[in-house]
Amino acid sequence: MSRCAPILPSQVPAMKDLTADNITQNVVILNSLCADTRVRYIFERLVTHLHDFAREVRLTSDEWQTGIDFLTAAGQISDDLRAEMILLSDTLGLSLLVDAITHPRPKGATEGTVLGPFHTHDAPVTANGYTLHKEDPSASSLLVLCSIKSTSGQSLEGVICDVWEGDAHGFYDVQDPDRGGNPNGRAVLRSDQDGMLFFTAVVPVPYPIPMDGPVGSMLRLLNRHPNRPGHIHFMLQKDGYDKLTTALYPRGDPYETSDPVFGVKESLIIDLEEVDETVAKRYDVPVGTKLLRYDFVLATVDEVRALKQKNAKDVLKQMRMDEEMLGELFSVD
Amino acid sequence: MSRCAPILPSQVPAMKDLTADNITQNVVILNSLCADTRVRYIFERLVTHLHDFAREVRLTSDEWQTGIDFLTAAGQISDDLRAEMILLSDTLGLSLLVDAITHPRPKGATEGTVLGPFHTHDAPVTANGYTLHKEDPSASSLLVLCSIKSTSGQSLEGVICDVWEGDAHGFYDVQDPDRGGNPNGRAVLRSDQDGMLFFTAVVPVPYPIPMDGPVGSMLRLLNRHPNRPGHIHFMLQKDGYDKLTTALYPRGDPYETSDPVFGVKESLIIDLEEVDETVAKRYDVPVGTKLLRYDFVLATVDEVRALKQKNAKDVLKQMRMDEEMLGELFSVD
Repeated sequence: MSRCAPILPSQVPAMKDLTADNITQNVVILNSLCADTRVRYIFERLVTHLHDFAREVRLTSDEWQTGIDFLTAAGQISDDLRAEMILLSDTLGLSLLVDAITHPRPKGATEGTVLGPFHTHDAPVTANGYTLHKEDPSASSLLVLCSIKSTSGQSLEGVICDVWEGDAHGFYDVQDPDRGGNPNGRAVLRSDQDGMLFFTAVVPVPYPIPMDGPVGSMLRLLNRHPNRPGHIHFMLQKDGYDKLTTALYPRGDPYETSDPVFGVKESLIIDLEEVDETVAKRYDVPVGTKLLRYDFVLATVDEVRALKQKNAKDVLKQMRMDEEMLGELFSVD
Repeated sequence: MSRCAPILPSQVPAMKDLTADNITQNVVILNSLCADTRVRYIFERLVTHLHDFAREVRLTSDEWQTGIDFLTAAGQISDDLRAEMILLSDTLGLSLLVDAITHPRPKGATEGTVLGPFHTHDAPVTANGYTLHKEDPSASSLLVLCSIKSTSGQSLEGVICDVWEGDAHGFYDVQDPDRGGNPNGRAVLRSDQDGMLFFTAVVPVPYPIPMDGPVGSMLRLLNRHPNRPGHIHFMLQKDGYDKLTTALYPRGDPYETSDPVFGVKESLIIDLEEVDETVAKRYDVPVGTKLLRYDFVLATVDEVRALKQKNAKDVLKQMRMDEEMLGELFSVD
């Protein structure tokens, strides 16, 4: 049977006497009853890697049980405001990898990074000039002032800008047990007719990812520290443009080069400035307020599709599969 | 850095600008802060296979989110009496593989198979002759009559025999919402001085694995049927002998060759007999009762250890690693 061909129930061989040597092939055959080529391909690769992993480490029943219990606990500690399975993906580097695969960037476009586990869907939909956080005298105020352009330099109006950030103590609102349905430190804004995005945030500080769940136990086992360098999250969306999930990191954070979720990129590290009189007057903030300026560049859907097709072709070559399979095997749109 | 060597925090390179091409290597380096060689090796292989999977299928953010949601839901539907993550492992063939790896069998020893998701720790500890199920007029009674011996033919007394089975309608007690703390269809027995194990069960019938959770959705997506051939589970333990988790399948079940959890082996398929007068008198059951006879053969811990060491050596060779690493990398005891 050629790789990833669909099969009929009558073609399934007798599944008996399966051993460490023949189980993989047989599971792949049984999964090939699925009519969807992409799903078959995903399961063929998933089962092959899962089994190769177990064979190469000679996974014991006790270790397997530890893994079963670990994944179960990660599911059980999760809820609407806690996403332990995302945190697991983040700390294993999978999230950064999937972002890189799904959103390859043409030269000049802003790089993406991990979504992280703290995005929610209940941020207030509001307008430029919004203040993200409830008043906090201990916080250092930060004016965020960004332009959003296409790779050809056109200012982009009406970009939906989902922004979120921890507070001055390094906690996201969802980590506050009293938060309920009252979001804080997050908003959904829109770029104006000049392609500008501006809001008042706080100077981000480093913070530990949640260590009271299974992922915390894993990091302790691995002797890894949990501290993310301070940052502000952005998710920018506009029809015709590829969604950009990214974050900006003020330069000089002690954890800048050892982020436990692997999200830092040099192009996303920014030297903070201070607001001068002109900016102060225009954006109605005190002179001397910290200022984060950034020029976002969004790639078009077409630009990203071309890159994804090229990358998918490279994989087909590497795996010695027919280039004609590209459209069936991969989601390149 | 050689594969799986430990590193010091000062040796961790700057983790910045990670891409689809260099993320894997960097995650492995960071995980190498762990002092335990076995843990480092497991995570090195885990991260490598996880990332290779994502790269080879060009996993999209949406598909990744589907996977995150799937695993979270599998954790959340699980509780003391439902083990969805085990069911997932079973249906992907991982459970059978791990049993084969952890419990390789020397020639002549009884083969193992999957534990399944229905084992509990609250079965009554009782004695030979026990009747597993509450009375059910619709059930066909079955006398199970087994000997337990070593590979050298010695009868083994005092083997702890954990046995469990669904009812005549194909349901395990844990699937009954009213079960509470009242187990049914399960017991922990002990082989007698002649190495004999006997109890009254019901003739097992095929049954679908639970389809109302995430694993059910997966099987439907893959166009796979959920029906396991009828069987009785056994877990046999005695000091000095390798734990045997297995099951016996009456011959002729319609799902004998298409078990969704890949657990059937020809050596575990049994022709049922009927109780004659001698047996009826001896075990106090009616003549004509269905009879399942089986001779279990347990391997010693030493026999299994030797096989595991051989298998681990083969892996080291295949992965071009030094044979001296065997003791550090693998749990062969």
